[in-house]
Amino acid sequence: MPSYQTRTDSQIVSPERRLNHIIIEDVTPSVEGGRYPAKRIAGESCVVEADIFRDGHQVLRAAVKWRRKRDEVFDEASMAAFDNDRWRGEFCPTENARYVFTIEAWTDLFATWLADFTKKVKAARPVASDVLEGIALVEKMSSRADRADRELFERTLARLRKTNDGATALAIVSEANISVAAERVGERSGLTRFEPLLELVVDREKARFGTWYEMFVRSQGVAPGKPGTFRDAERRLPELRDLGFDVVYLAPIHPIGHTNRKGPGNALNGGSNSPGSPWAIGSEAGGHTAIEPAIGTIGDFDRFNAAANRLGIEVALDFAIQCSPDHPWVREHPNWFQHRPDGSIKYAENPPKEYQDIYPIDFDTSDQRGLLEELMRVVRFWREHGVKIFRVDNPHTKPVQFWNWLINEVQATNPEVIFLAEAFTRPKMMKALAKAGFTQSYTYFTWRNTKFELTEYLTELTQTPMKEYFRPNFFTNTPDILAPVLQTGGRAAFKMRLVLAATLSPSYGIYSGYELCENEAVPGTEEYLNSEKYEYKVRDWNRPGNIKEFIGRVNTIRRDNPALQQFLNLRFLSTDNDQILFFSKATPDRNNVILVAVNLDPSNAHYCTAHVPPEVVGIAPGGSYRVTDLLTGAKYVWSEHNYVRLDPGVEPAHILRVEGRL
Amino acid sequence: MPSYQTRTDSQIVSPERRLNHIIIEDVTPSVEGGRYPAKRIAGESCVVEADIFRDGHQVLRAAVKWRRKRDEVFDEASMAAFDNDRWRGEFCPTENARYVFTIEAWTDLFATWLADFTKKVKAARPVASDVLEGIALVEKMSSRADRADRELFERTLARLRKTNDGATALAIVSEANISVAAERVGERSGLTRFEPLLELVVDREKARFGTWYEMFVRSQGVAPGKPGTFRDAERRLPELRDLGFDVVYLAPIHPIGHTNRKGPGNALNGGSNSPGSPWAIGSEAGGHTAIEPAIGTIGDFDRFNAAANRLGIEVALDFAIQCSPDHPWVREHPNWFQHRPDGSIKYAENPPKEYQDIYPIDFDTSDQRGLLEELMRVVRFWREHGVKIFRVDNPHTKPVQFWNWLINEVQATNPEVIFLAEAFTRPKMMKALAKAGFTQSYTYFTWRNTKFELTEYLTELTQTPMKEYFRPNFFTNTPDILAPVLQTGGRAAFKMRLVLAATLSPSYGIYSGYELCENEAVPGTEEYLNSEKYEYKVRDWNRPGNIKEFIGRVNTIRRDNPALQQFLNLRFLSTDNDQILFFSKATPDRNNVILVAVNLDPSNAHYCTAHVPPEVVGIAPGGSYRVTDLLTGAKYVWSEHNYVRLDPGVEPAHILRVEGRL
Repeated sequence: MPSYQTRTDSQIVSPERRLNHIIIEDVTPSVEGGRYPAKRIAGESCVVEADIFRDGHQVLRAAVKWRRKRDEVFDEASMAAFDNDRWRGEFCPTENARYVFTIEAWTDLFATWLADFTKKVKAARPVASDVLEGIALVEKMSSRADRADRELFERTLARLRKTNDGATALAIVSEANISVAAERVGERSGLTRFEPLLELVVDREKARFGTWYEMFVRSQGVAPGKPGTFRDAERRLPELRDLGFDVVYLAPIHPIGHTNRKGPGNALNGGSNSPGSPWAIGSEAGGHTAIEPAIGTIGDFDRFNAAANRLGIEVALDFAIQCSPDHPWVREHPNWFQHRPDGSIKYAENPPKEYQDIYPIDFDTSDQRGLLEELMRVVRFWREHGVKIFRVDNPHTKPVQFWNWLINEVQATNPEVIFLAEAFTRPKMMKALAKAGFTQSYTYFTWRNTKFELTEYLTELTQTPMKEYFRPNFFTNTPDILAPVLQTGGRAAFKMRLVLAATLSPSYGIYSGYELCENEAVPGTEEYLNSEKYEYKVRDWNRPGNIKEFIGRVNTIRRDNPALQQFLNLRFLSTDNDQILFFSKATPDRNNVILVAVNLDPSNAHYCTAHVPPEVVGIAPGGSYRVTDLLTGAKYVWSEHNYVRLDPGVEPAHILRVEGRL
Repeated sequence: MPSYQTRTDSQIVSPERRLNHIIIEDVTPSVEGGRYPAKRIAGESCVVEADIFRDGHQVLRAAVKWRRKRDEVFDEASMAAFDNDRWRGEFCPTENARYVFTIEAWTDLFATWLADFTKKVKAARPVASDVLEGIALVEKMSSRADRADRELFERTLARLRKTNDGATALAIVSEANISVAAERVGERSGLTRFEPLLELVVDREKARFGTWYEMFVRSQGVAPGKPGTFRDAERRLPELRDLGFDVVYLAPIHPIGHTNRKGPGNALNGGSNSPGSPWAIGSEAGGHTAIEPAIGTIGDFDRFNAAANRLGIEVALDFAIQCSPDHPWVREHPNWFQHRPDGSIKYAENPPKEYQDIYPIDFDTSDQRGLLEELMRVVRFWREHGVKIFRVDNPHTKPVQFWNWLINEVQATNPEVIFLAEAFTRPKMMKALAKAGFTQSYTYFTWRNTKFELTEYLTELTQTPMKEYFRPNFFTNTPDILAPVLQTGGRAAFKMRLVLAATLSPSYGIYSGYELCENEAVPGTEEYLNSEKYEYKVRDWNRPGNIKEFIGRVNTIRRDNPALQQFLNLRFLSTDNDQILFFSKATPDRNNVILVAVNLDPSNAHYCTAHVPPEVVGIAPGGSYRVTDLLTGAKYVWSEHNYVRLDPGVEPAHILRVEGRL
């Protein structure tokens, strides 16, 4: 027998190693042809598409098959051709778990015969032989059918055998219930399955929609020069809940090292009177599974976490894989670190920058196994203490393959765990981390200011292959990033950037101080002046000029409008002013349609004509509709072309809900 | 040990199952991530690109590795980063054979150390420990080096050990020959290979550049009503050579069946006095390996083939897998055909169309093995008779997997064999056949008439993934396709469409009669009136109004200008007239730059301003240059914006060669 085991075979499975007719290609969702899983949310429909075709003009059928990865039996939903050999089907992965899916396609012999028979009868061709073929097909189906279908087939056969007239026979076999039964019972001729199976990481809803607040526990106190504690932080939770935050992300809470402790403003040798950087993890009080004594105990953490959960808030921890020289690992596992020729351990550096208070981990250690097991233990420890979200510090300085292993292993038993990648690095590494498994990713949002920049970046995120695996979390600021527009644009800039983050991306966050419009930078940098990374901070959270009421309103709008809880429904709309960004978000049923217009210039009022194609709001061309500005309560009647004027001194944006088609 | 055998691993190979740092992604050329081979030409450079990156800031190196598939040892060429983690290298597959290639990347420890060391010395940091690290690295390299390099390393070590000054040490290790030796000798740390290997079908030049003439042997005679023979056809060869054709493709030459033989104009039951359709293959005189007695013998074929070869012309045969009812296979292998309930064999039909003179092959026969072996025997038979090109009839009505098997098997022993797919069907099937192995493909060219249609189609062919595997062969006409523009546009249309086919695509062809501007169609169809598919035809090849001189000139231009022998160098240029298509083709060194302007309206003169960006001709902005119209010999001085007027009554096109920059 000739061997036709060629490359095409890899996608076409035939138990008898016979030629297969059907080709299934370009299946979506998939990431790099199935090398990585796509991401979806439990309870949300997953639309599957593929190119499916064969030689000849036979009638094809196709179905999407899916199951949880750990199950064995597939569910099935039929697909339909919609355009030029492109087929579509959908299924709903209901659980927060890993799923697999594939597509099967086959030739429908009865439908093929019926299509040809119909054409021949209509062309008045002799069809006696064709009727006999049809009878044979129905007989075969009858022999495979259960009782109800068999009765139908037998009645059909009896009628068919009595006629020798093509038109009569056609009328008999064209009855709708026969085709329905035939699709149910008929042989799946030449069944072909797309292989290998494609994988889907199905996350819980928080992976898609969340409102984050980042804070340092030690900055939640009230006495200057004294560290805030978990008890202090706990007292802030009701206010954060009222402002609409549902994730509180804590800068590292672990013991801070003493050796080479940094002082205020990142000064070398801050000494023991300085609190040090929380990212210099580990002291005699413990390492990654301990709590810095100045802020509390593990019991205090548990209490804080429970209090947050009662308010509907999740606690996210920072996972920074690095050590202070005083970390227990340094003593217990010196071979997890790189050494100098003199035997001393190397501190972190990215020449000419130096981080004397931090030892990086050497992932190439000969004890890689021990290292990985310990890092896994850290994650599992905090999971046992109720943590379901990890914000991972600088993941791009550790092997991508490590993250792939860690995240897959953790999610195998705990699919609810969310990992956010804090990588601000080159685009391909950003993507690689997301493909490798990170649930969400930090982004370039803080550096995208102009209409062109925002449109280009959001288009990349929502309309390229990234949409299948890269979920952005838009932070307005971080302890490391105070963007120039915030440094110079004042309160209006803070409101403007908040609206952008909160309405463009369903996951977004602010770092504490944003609500107070803190905007003093180390000159010429994006670093905060007197950064709380290196000192205790006490703030008056009700300081005049704060934008808490505005933040609360925006977060309420997000909570009340499901269109803002999705990402891929973003659609940019045109205006005639480059300073006004304008876009829509709508639910698939158009019951919730939001139009957002943002003045990107925090210093000047701008106006424009904003264009809304009628299909965006679901009206006929030329129609008009009512909108309410959810920020101000103002009501307008809008149509296809609308005058918009936004004065940053008043409000920098409209968030309009379409309320009634007129 | 934790198992980190996850999906990312599939691309990262580590013998010790340790974490790998390096990611190699998005390698080109590849087709669907390596599922199918890309196509190249022997002797032409193959540029390889990939995304290559790792965690951290270490210095990476990468190399492309390649070999013939049947060899074992790889050649290697280094790659260089050129943009945002994108790397490029190239190699030249010199043989007409199947090749494999991949990419290897590794961390360069010495270069990484040197980069960091340089920054620290320049920042005046203490570097005593760093010098010791450098010494250790050089010692290690020295121990691996051959004598010449070892001497260099030892001299360097001696000098390094004598200094405790950073700047001096830096001067010593920065000497260029050290880095060169280090790259040669240094350890390939964390070597990572992209897997699986990617494949490349490397064809001979004819797969890229050929000028085809299609004819029926039986139409080469001179006596009306009598079949022409191979001897008659042989007499036409010198003229075809003079016109510039280098492939003569013959409609099927096999015995024609008698049963239900078609008559003139595709009439049913033409009777034995009709010659029948050459695609109704097989009679008592034999099947696919026999010659129709009316046109000659296998000896005549051999003689014809030898005569063609002597003139530099290859003979392409039609491979049509179908039978007349009189084909020996019908008697010898009745189970290769589909049967009616009464036991008779079904003729071909695509209801309501019927082809009573043809039995299709049933690829689902239980004797699939026997069928495939016989089809393979047919191809090998003709290969033994000198045929190296097969034009495959209607491949889309046979399983794609069959072609994949057949072509791979044939090319494994005979890589010189070219297969041209005659599929005019839906786009995804067209692509699937090319991916499965067809060397060249028929196209939609005959149905692309407007500037928009031509630009869109050629852009798809040259700038989408199709460019890696789909090689078009532009036929101006075929026995089945007499396009409307030719039916109505007269001689000017024939010249215009010839220039388009011949200059847009390096492979193109005409079907005989085109040179005589034959344009009578069956009304309302694209079928030729009195088609020679069903009757003997005798033509006066020197009939007035023929465009042979024009064809010969265009083919000479193609032969003399390497820019026109390539496809992917096509670049559309803008004009301000939608009736004038304008494009350039150039060799990479710009020694041969061709500008083609074609008036797409065969009835009216049009003029335009044609824009030539300076880089297209390799001049500075504002410069001018001389061009010669190779069709007319006219000379012009051109610059960035040029007046063009094309009167179809004179010539429908300019084919301008850039001859001198002024």
